[in-house]
Amino acid sequence: MNKKMKIGLCQLNVKAGRPEKNLQKMLELIEQAKSTQIDMIIFPEMAVGGYLVGDVWLEESWCDYLMECNSILQEASEGIILIYGNIFIDKSKRNTDGRFRKYNAAYIFQNKQPINHPVNSTLGIPNGVSFKSLLPNYRYFDDKRYFYPFIDLVQEMGVSIEKAYQPFKLSVDGKYYNIGLSICEDMWYEDYSRIYNKNRQIPYNPLGTLVRNGADFIVNISSSPWTFGKEQARDNRIQSLQKDLNSQFVPVYYVNACGVQNNGKNIITFDGGSTIYNQFGSQIFEYRAEDFQEQLITVDHSITLKDRGIHYHRRKPKLTQKYEAIIQGIRSFDEMMDWKPNYIIGLSGGVDSSLVATLVAHAVGSDRIIASNLPTEYNSAKTRSSAAKLVENLKINRYYELPISELVQENTKLLEKTGAIPSLAAENIQAKIRGTSILSNLAGMHNGVMTNNGNKLEIALGYATLYGDVNGAIAPIGDLTKTEVFQMARDINQQFGELIPPEVIPDENFTFTKDGIPPTAELKHNQLDPMKFGYHDALLVAFTDYQKKTPEDILRWYQKGEPFFCEKLGITPTLFEKYQLGDVKAFIADLEWFTKTIRKNIFKRIQSPPIVLVSKSAYGFDIRESQFVWTPSFAFQRLKKQILDNFGINGNITHV
Amino acid sequence: MNKKMKIGLCQLNVKAGRPEKNLQKMLELIEQAKSTQIDMIIFPEMAVGGYLVGDVWLEESWCDYLMECNSILQEASEGIILIYGNIFIDKSKRNTDGRFRKYNAAYIFQNKQPINHPVNSTLGIPNGVSFKSLLPNYRYFDDKRYFYPFIDLVQEMGVSIEKAYQPFKLSVDGKYYNIGLSICEDMWYEDYSRIYNKNRQIPYNPLGTLVRNGADFIVNISSSPWTFGKEQARDNRIQSLQKDLNSQFVPVYYVNACGVQNNGKNIITFDGGSTIYNQFGSQIFEYRAEDFQEQLITVDHSITLKDRGIHYHRRKPKLTQKYEAIIQGIRSFDEMMDWKPNYIIGLSGGVDSSLVATLVAHAVGSDRIIASNLPTEYNSAKTRSSAAKLVENLKINRYYELPISELVQENTKLLEKTGAIPSLAAENIQAKIRGTSILSNLAGMHNGVMTNNGNKLEIALGYATLYGDVNGAIAPIGDLTKTEVFQMARDINQQFGELIPPEVIPDENFTFTKDGIPPTAELKHNQLDPMKFGYHDALLVAFTDYQKKTPEDILRWYQKGEPFFCEKLGITPTLFEKYQLGDVKAFIADLEWFTKTIRKNIFKRIQSPPIVLVSKSAYGFDIRESQFVWTPSFAFQRLKKQILDNFGINGNITHV
Repeated sequence: MNKKMKIGLCQLNVKAGRPEKNLQKMLELIEQAKSTQIDMIIFPEMAVGGYLVGDVWLEESWCDYLMECNSILQEASEGIILIYGNIFIDKSKRNTDGRFRKYNAAYIFQNKQPINHPVNSTLGIPNGVSFKSLLPNYRYFDDKRYFYPFIDLVQEMGVSIEKAYQPFKLSVDGKYYNIGLSICEDMWYEDYSRIYNKNRQIPYNPLGTLVRNGADFIVNISSSPWTFGKEQARDNRIQSLQKDLNSQFVPVYYVNACGVQNNGKNIITFDGGSTIYNQFGSQIFEYRAEDFQEQLITVDHSITLKDRGIHYHRRKPKLTQKYEAIIQGIRSFDEMMDWKPNYIIGLSGGVDSSLVATLVAHAVGSDRIIASNLPTEYNSAKTRSSAAKLVENLKINRYYELPISELVQENTKLLEKTGAIPSLAAENIQAKIRGTSILSNLAGMHNGVMTNNGNKLEIALGYATLYGDVNGAIAPIGDLTKTEVFQMARDINQQFGELIPPEVIPDENFTFTKDGIPPTAELKHNQLDPMKFGYHDALLVAFTDYQKKTPEDILRWYQKGEPFFCEKLGITPTLFEKYQLGDVKAFIADLEWFTKTIRKNIFKRIQSPPIVLVSKSAYGFDIRESQFVWTPSFAFQRLKKQILDNFGINGNITHV
Repeated sequence: MNKKMKIGLCQLNVKAGRPEKNLQKMLELIEQAKSTQIDMIIFPEMAVGGYLVGDVWLEESWCDYLMECNSILQEASEGIILIYGNIFIDKSKRNTDGRFRKYNAAYIFQNKQPINHPVNSTLGIPNGVSFKSLLPNYRYFDDKRYFYPFIDLVQEMGVSIEKAYQPFKLSVDGKYYNIGLSICEDMWYEDYSRIYNKNRQIPYNPLGTLVRNGADFIVNISSSPWTFGKEQARDNRIQSLQKDLNSQFVPVYYVNACGVQNNGKNIITFDGGSTIYNQFGSQIFEYRAEDFQEQLITVDHSITLKDRGIHYHRRKPKLTQKYEAIIQGIRSFDEMMDWKPNYIIGLSGGVDSSLVATLVAHAVGSDRIIASNLPTEYNSAKTRSSAAKLVENLKINRYYELPISELVQENTKLLEKTGAIPSLAAENIQAKIRGTSILSNLAGMHNGVMTNNGNKLEIALGYATLYGDVNGAIAPIGDLTKTEVFQMARDINQQFGELIPPEVIPDENFTFTKDGIPPTAELKHNQLDPMKFGYHDALLVAFTDYQKKTPEDILRWYQKGEPFFCEKLGITPTLFEKYQLGDVKAFIADLEWFTKTIRKNIFKRIQSPPIVLVSKSAYGFDIRESQFVWTPSFAFQRLKKQILDNFGINGNITHV
């Protein structure tokens, strides 16, 4: 067991829907591994076809195509052990949707042969393959839509769970290794354990069972998208597994995909972060792969076994990680397009478009940007100069100032033939001229794609014009709150020098200094954004948290007084003061407005472009929304009444 | 058992997300039922909150709200038996997503008391409620995302399936009835039966088990959307259950919701069609509710028991049903908006916009339509006159002809400052002026919503301009192929007189008579739509079928010769001839173009409006699409080579 075995963790940049590219890359890497005497090479879950390919999973020919790739990969395993993820299909059986059966599978070949598995023949499946049991079906995951769980096959075939999870036994130079293969979510079994643990001594635990059945080490192949805090959660998961098993615990090789995949409405980054956990459940950071980078990490298994340390790793701050995820999101989206588009960016002079331009410049270079400022009489000299400054700072060579007033007039003239134009409609005319008549056409003319510059708060409240600034091919900051937008702008200026004009960035209390430019749509005179930055951001974070909060929760927090309220929302008393949230009546009216407005603007999100996902719930197909209006629940009505009664109609919470 | 019991089947028009409305309506109907001596009133699945509310299911306050409605309904059951669908939550347990546990439940109360259930206490759940076992997770269904299956609870609690499915026992005037409660998909257990039937004598069958456990009759409450052929399939389902159980079989009361719900990207109609199956498994059509109509059907259970007949029912043709579903879709969408919008319809003079205007006129009346024709120099007098004729036929009072050439010129002038405008971009400028600068602004000005007039073939191929004719708030014919559009236009003219100008409707071979107007976008001179109507429609139907077909399948059919090919695709030899599909090389090139083009235009569908669903797979959130380009599989490449080799590079299939 202490024999040397060189293991290659291959953090592949998996291209969803492009088996021909993934296969070629895998074959290259397999050859490279052989030439460097790697004994075992491991690729991520769904390495061949990608993971988020949507309903293409329902196509038999697509699945046949991926199955055919297995033969090629099996052939390529001459002289090496090869582990990777792909689909496995069984046309003799059906999924519960009535279609042919599909499993999310891990393959293991050695010397062109599938490795024997002690139970597979009992389960009616071939050697050299094992299936995922736990299928995530939350957020943007639709695994149960497509795949059949291993655990259901096990039950269907009348095999016990304890018997079913067996390691693969293989030999390297005459030494035997028991390899416990697992796929992604199978490591995260805690929420699933109830179903299968009734009347059992041992709780349901695929990894623990593999170890108890003799696995010398665990391989977990994953297609696990980036979220902030995921690595810490995984470390905790492994630690808790280690505590369960104690001295029985074995090393874990974790191989995750990197790159970007999408579900139509979201651009989802896979961070990689492939790593090794030692027998104490600690990451050996010297072998941890870089985030977001395709990489082949090589380690000798004997070194893993010898590692006795408890390691610590300083993680990057949240917004730095989000910045990196967005950069990666833009880059891989760009790569996916295959035709090197220009990026058409409308610069209003405000912070959102400035940040987007900066991110795009960092991701693909400012020579790929065509920027423009499209003023009317409502646009101040200040915002126009901010836009120009940014262009200079980012060294954007193609920049157009195109005043649109005449076009607006012409459009207005035509529309007036049907009646008078209300104020809001008049504002929208301008935004649509910008987004559609100019920017989207510039994209068509200049081999380009248009960016959507909206942030999550604007997207939530629909504070943008459909067919105007809602337009775009990609929304790089569509999952950042305004608080995060400001903070990322500050961080960028701190790290890269003053790229984003400082006058559009407020201080941490959201105050703009004397010469600053508070956010405005500039669609009429003296317009100012109606959002309470910081506070509304906090509401939005609560509403879109994984454990969704609602207006009822906000009222309950409020009932408990300002300190509790501020703590739960994560806002400062200064902000509470700034927005006079102590005015009970205004506070409730604002909360009702906020809630209704989010729901009312679903129709815009239905037609909005893909958002780069960086939170625990992004608009798109992560948060799934049906159109209907918000009406207050019984509880909301009661709470509202209680609060108004107790604090007095114009009562002030701080006086209680 | 032959005692009279009056049962009310209440086909409620369920408003998704509006418990206050549903509750009020239910309370009214309960009172009405009492006043007409109904003993038992049955409402559909998820009658209280609606079914398709998306991630609002994840909000605790929403679920609490619905649970609170249960108390009110329980109170209302004084003097009546009340059955209805609603959520049941158990905060002491978790779903596999880590959130609090939710079940899709059926409630049964009598005289303000929950009816006792023999097993519920063993399962740790209260009386008067039973849960759905089988959770659809295909198409637009996301049940497994939200709800916990009853069958998993049963396993978790170590109870046998045979024991778990028990009827509720209740008495009416001293007579006892065993009522087997089931929810929607539980009737459709065939695709689920494998998981739970290993080592069992009796296959998994919730309804059969209820009957074997003594149910006198079955109640199935559903929220089952309309699809063509569903009623026949349900009849077959019941027939097959009847065959299994034979003389044991008992009557089934089926209560389905009507109305329209949405998932953001699709507008989904619920047809109702509530009905009664007698002991022979035949529908008693005299008690069948109307399609799409809110209705309270009353029947005496003794009459059901006496019914011995085998009944036949002539069903309406497919397109008539689709026409009705669209009308209902528009009406309920309109109702959902709560503010009686005007419908802004751009009339090109072509068949698609003509059909949309006719459907909207039939659904909400032509006085709610504001129509316009927006010509440039490329628009023929013919199409302009067709548009005007339609306006006259439909009696649309508000109609504007707004020539847009000047606005196009102004827009062009501004864009030219950045370079020359390629031809396609120039075409798009016009479409965007129409869709955005005029129509979407008209909607803003005139309290209106804009219709999207695209058909499914155009939507598939992206043969529409983003921010131009892709715009809209609702796409009434977005799930009809062009073949269906033509046929529905013909049907409408036949039934209602010549509403749609006949010059835009071809004959059944898609030939336009001498004065006819073949479809054209009229964005440049002599433009003609590139689609092979009829044939491309057939390809699209195959590609989007429930069992998805792919280009590989098409090539395999082609290999077997023209008759086989035509039969599989459902096209005529005349059409094969018309499009010269016998030209092998051109045929393959066209197939590749068709496949690639569908995939390439996903970006437009991401930003397109909700489509009224009338097929077995509609674009939107029924078909879930990730963006990536199509590349030919190994099989496609082989088949292509075989076909080209066998038939010769310029070979003709008909010569083989």
